[in-house]
Amino acid sequence: MVDFVGRAKWDAWNALGSMSQEDAQKAYIDLVNSLAGGEEKTAAAQTDSGQKYKNLLITCENGLRTITLNRPEKKNAITKEMYEEWIESLKEAAEDPGTVITAITGSGDYYCSGNDLSNFANIDPSKMHESSKEAGVLLNRFVSAFIDFPKPLVAVVNGHAIGVCVTVMALFDAVYASDMATFHTPFSALGQSPEGCSTYTFPKIMGPAKANEMLLFNKKITAQQACDVGLVAEVIPANSFQQKIWPKLQAHAKLPVKSLVYSKALTRDMEKDILHKVNDAECDRLVERWTSEDCINAIVNFFNRKK
Amino acid sequence: MVDFVGRAKWDAWNALGSMSQEDAQKAYIDLVNSLAGGEEKTAAAQTDSGQKYKNLLITCENGLRTITLNRPEKKNAITKEMYEEWIESLKEAAEDPGTVITAITGSGDYYCSGNDLSNFANIDPSKMHESSKEAGVLLNRFVSAFIDFPKPLVAVVNGHAIGVCVTVMALFDAVYASDMATFHTPFSALGQSPEGCSTYTFPKIMGPAKANEMLLFNKKITAQQACDVGLVAEVIPANSFQQKIWPKLQAHAKLPVKSLVYSKALTRDMEKDILHKVNDAECDRLVERWTSEDCINAIVNFFNRKK
Amino acid sequence: MVDFVGRAKWDAWNALGSMSQEDAQKAYIDLVNSLAGGEEKTAAAQTDSGQKYKNLLITCENGLRTITLNRPEKKNAITKEMYEEWIESLKEAAEDPGTVITAITGSGDYYCSGNDLSNFANIDPSKMHESSKEAGVLLNRFVSAFIDFPKPLVAVVNGHAIGVCVTVMALFDAVYASDMATFHTPFSALGQSPEGCSTYTFPKIMGPAKANEMLLFNKKITAQQACDVGLVAEVIPANSFQQKIWPKLQAHAKLPVKSLVYSKALTRDMEKDILHKVNDAECDRLVERWTSEDCINAIVNFFNRKK
Repeated sequence: MVDFVGRAKWDAWNALGSMSQEDAQKAYIDLVNSLAGGEEKTAAAQTDSGQKYKNLLITCENGLRTITLNRPEKKNAITKEMYEEWIESLKEAAEDPGTVITAITGSGDYYCSGNDLSNFANIDPSKMHESSKEAGVLLNRFVSAFIDFPKPLVAVVNGHAIGVCVTVMALFDAVYASDMATFHTPFSALGQSPEGCSTYTFPKIMGPAKANEMLLFNKKITAQQACDVGLVAEVIPANSFQQKIWPKLQAHAKLPVKSLVYSKALTRDMEKDILHKVNDAECDRLVERWTSEDCINAIVNFFNRKK
Repeated sequence: MVDFVGRAKWDAWNALGSMSQEDAQKAYIDLVNSLAGGEEKTAAAQTDSGQKYKNLLITCENGLRTITLNRPEKKNAITKEMYEEWIESLKEAAEDPGTVITAITGSGDYYCSGNDLSNFANIDPSKMHESSKEAGVLLNRFVSAFIDFPKPLVAVVNGHAIGVCVTVMALFDAVYASDMATFHTPFSALGQSPEGCSTYTFPKIMGPAKANEMLLFNKKITAQQACDVGLVAEVIPANSFQQKIWPKLQAHAKLPVKSLVYSKALTRDMEKDILHKVNDAECDRLVERWTSEDCINAIVNFFNRKK
Repeated sequence: MVDFVGRAKWDAWNALGSMSQEDAQKAYIDLVNSLAGGEEKTAAAQTDSGQKYKNLLITCENGLRTITLNRPEKKNAITKEMYEEWIESLKEAAEDPGTVITAITGSGDYYCSGNDLSNFANIDPSKMHESSKEAGVLLNRFVSAFIDFPKPLVAVVNGHAIGVCVTVMALFDAVYASDMATFHTPFSALGQSPEGCSTYTFPKIMGPAKANEMLLFNKKITAQQACDVGLVAEVIPANSFQQKIWPKLQAHAKLPVKSLVYSKALTRDMEKDILHKVNDAECDRLVERWTSEDCINAIVNFFNRKK
């Protein structure tokens, strides 16, 4: 670590160990609020004690499976446990013969605020490199679950979207957004680098000029801008979003499943190898970034501001 | 067949054998009308008895060759014979030293309504697999003719476009559309899957979200939408379309042919191998799809509705 | 030469040798004016005697390096000397540890008018093939400098842009344009063919239909059109362009440089090999084109019109 981080920074980081899990999460939510424009409304998570997932709500009816990210009081930020549940829920959707279309959405006023930065606060500083490698493996498995998902996958972007949930969107087959949604990938501002295959998919979809404004220069875009560049298929006014989107997806779920699965395979199979290579390269880079002075400074500054 | 189709469906399909060629074509035109919004106007085909093609009109003047799809009373739906003629006419254009620019357009109020579904009605059910393979070879040759066409190729989309004539458009060098044109690829609704290299070209051009709305979810788009996503270069009002488009192409046809041919080669040669691979994969999948229960049900339902 | 060019053309070309360097450059500026709409205003070059470059102005402050093309009285047309200086200035920017963001802009009312056609007037006709090969090597090195540039590179397009400065823009990481800027690549009109990897990048960014209107059919587009197709990230009104763009880039230059460099590498490394292959193929083709009858006729006609 000595070569990366000055002693003072190291101590500051070390002191984060004394921040409670709850404080760290609260601090992260404050950051997320400041990034996305300060909304303070948060819905309470729906209780759903019978389900196998703590952070997701699953429904499946007439071929349409819905996976709802369900930590609304934390802006649906993704903890390690939630990454694992999301991966498992995609596996379940892929294997269930009754599932034709799989939709991902968020509960509350956010779609998802990305990687929960409080994941960083729980790291024992002496095991930082080890933890970073483990996090890289987890991220790689998460992104691979989207690359390899064999059925039509639809993002129902009900609100703000930040970080990895934005980048993996380009691996979905369709993306519908409320006009209140925003899309933000502030990687370099946090000393990090892009993931979710976005270094490959974003330039391909929107050209390098607009892709790099987001990926390198932290530009936040609106739903309409995301639609204009091709990341989003259609923008729907927030006040009719829920009424309009679900009947549309219910109709899609009545299409012949084999035609859908085979058609998706044709669009995906040719570039699957390159997507996995890109995912590997991005995760390797993040394992380095997470233990870099740039990233540690950004995280430490962020949590110190909040304490 | 037993494993694919229940006895009842088989009988229904079998009974199509007794449908006359003319009834099947009329039924297909009715379907096409219902897909595209119900226009009933159809122009009579121009007679052109001196030409070598039954379904195409060819003109060539000052470097501009025009191939007009000329079955207006059938919405320019493509029969097997017409596929062969279209392939042959492209070969002729490629080899003619006097041809600089080749334009494809439709006569009547349609550009082209895609594969004539009455092609299905003529299949002896006992030879369905054999017929399906033959159709796959024909489609592969048809799409290859566009991949390999060495000179600038321009689509002059005078009206509605459905199916394979839409997908191969992404293999043209420029596409100009009347503002009355629409673009529709209802593959999964018919139990089929995309062709014309669209599973590769459409996501590349418009991003996966908008591409899959068309290719997986059967979305019909307007000329303006097709222009916004990059499938069409320019939209021209219908009432001035013919007056504006031809002088533009006549001017292009005066450019140095070698510069055009070599420039096109630079844009095409790097991805020719992948285009042929994609074409092969798409045709293989369709050979399977055409004998699948999904497709047979869709075709049988369609013709029974019409009888 | 005999097989390419008739004796009369050859004599006309030969006679260009007697045109003074200054006359040739003046004639080229007249052409450029007629292409871009006839503006006659030209600013005098700022004197900057202390610098190592004759055709460029370099500034570097707080991580932001600006390379200003500085032949405004020649519309910033690129002479051989200026190609060499531009390559050298990129090398310098890459190696300077104090440079985070590198911006390219033009002085005067043009961004850059592309390859200075007066480069052609200085060729000894008996050494045309040799000169053409040398020019191909120079162009290849110039384009490679953009492919391999390791830090964020931003085009600040203050005015009209023509030819190779447009094509290499797609190798930049961000492009901001004044609403007075235009983008024009009239290759086939001059008997030439596209370079700067545009035969690969333009179809990827804007789809083949819009790319080929520019690359094959010489279409000039506005800044807003360039933004709509994804070549430009943002259009800014001319009267606030300079005030708005520099603070934005100064802010970008404060981001962690390693995150920026590593993020750019992720977007670039996967396709670097194909970009170099495309560059090679395009330069090989231009070496042939520059000695072709098409190109010689176009150049001769152009200079004769001006004499």
